[in-house]
Amino acid sequence: MGRKSDAGERILDAAAKLFAQRSYASIGVAEISAEAGVPKGSFYYFYPSKQILALAVVNRHWERQRAEWLRILTAPDPLPDRLHALFVSTRDVQLQALNGTGAVAGCLFGNLALEVSAQDDPVRARLQQIFDEQIDIVEAAIRTVDDGGEAPVTAPREAAKAIVAQIEGMVLFAKLFNDPGQLDQLWQNSMRLLGLPVRGAVPAGSE
Amino acid sequence: MGRKSDAGERILDAAAKLFAQRSYASIGVAEISAEAGVPKGSFYYFYPSKQILALAVVNRHWERQRAEWLRILTAPDPLPDRLHALFVSTRDVQLQALNGTGAVAGCLFGNLALEVSAQDDPVRARLQQIFDEQIDIVEAAIRTVDDGGEAPVTAPREAAKAIVAQIEGMVLFAKLFNDPGQLDQLWQNSMRLLGLPVRGAVPAGSE
Repeated sequence: MGRKSDAGERILDAAAKLFAQRSYASIGVAEISAEAGVPKGSFYYFYPSKQILALAVVNRHWERQRAEWLRILTAPDPLPDRLHALFVSTRDVQLQALNGTGAVAGCLFGNLALEVSAQDDPVRARLQQIFDEQIDIVEAAIRTVDDGGEAPVTAPREAAKAIVAQIEGMVLFAKLFNDPGQLDQLWQNSMRLLGLPVRGAVPAGSE
Repeated sequence: MGRKSDAGERILDAAAKLFAQRSYASIGVAEISAEAGVPKGSFYYFYPSKQILALAVVNRHWERQRAEWLRILTAPDPLPDRLHALFVSTRDVQLQALNGTGAVAGCLFGNLALEVSAQDDPVRARLQQIFDEQIDIVEAAIRTVDDGGEAPVTAPREAAKAIVAQIEGMVLFAKLFNDPGQLDQLWQNSMRLLGLPVRGAVPAGSE
């Protein structure tokens, strides 16, 4: 057991790990506390309920992923290169999970979304916001495409949504087949969704 | 309660309904039996375990969906029209669920896939087969595209996988936002994934 001040952080780490492995409904406070190495009483000191913990896990995950997406998608590079970097990053996250735990983790938001969608749940409302923000970030990137002399994309919002949906679908396959290689076509598919030339190869210097 | 011979079918219906609403892990045999209106003892007469029931639910769902996909995708129509009919059908299934139960059901396979993927589960192996079969069916349809004088698609397998991933991602959004309208762009997105002209409108006469 670490210092008391680490306990809240350890609970978040433990929950994130367990939520990647099994259903949210099947994971109880006792199991999360045991995984974190904190007494169950401490759990409730930090998180009054599993739902509040789930929101904290989701918010921390999005804070980190959002920073990464913004760093990549607002870089001063042509759009195809920025999208390519996003998909390399997406694949690497799953590859690291596979190497570290033996299993592709999938998308925390997608995993939880399918489980909480039939319920009136604050987690569901937060996930709706997060997917909207993901689409916002991709849309903003797409809108910069004509800066580099490329043809402008006709419906940037719909194209951004299609790209985020493509990521979710392919990450589902990566999880189901436990194979990050399922993500290898994400860049090509996104270029096609944008109506931009694929040129049969990945951007030079970004692989 | 219906006749004894219906009980097995009622258990399947009850389980399919409950699996669309909440996580597989959170639904027990007692709840399924109560929803089906059969004694818990009868449940085990038909299904020795919840896992065997889940396989039966998945198999029945795929048997029906497979017949529908084959009917639509092997019709003697141009590929764009066949794909359009598939997406109208996909949206209508979710619209019917929304009108009937108040909630978009999502994709039974996707819902279960995210939940059983971290486990060595026969349900997982079956879901892998089913997604492969879905991609097979779409790929076979894509390979017929040059029959109608359209440009052939360069990588039909990858394109088929991209289309099935696009369906899964968009159905996830439809479930999360409880809005079948999320599926309205599926046809346009798939045409783009195939590199075929979208022509700014749905095929004539098929809406």
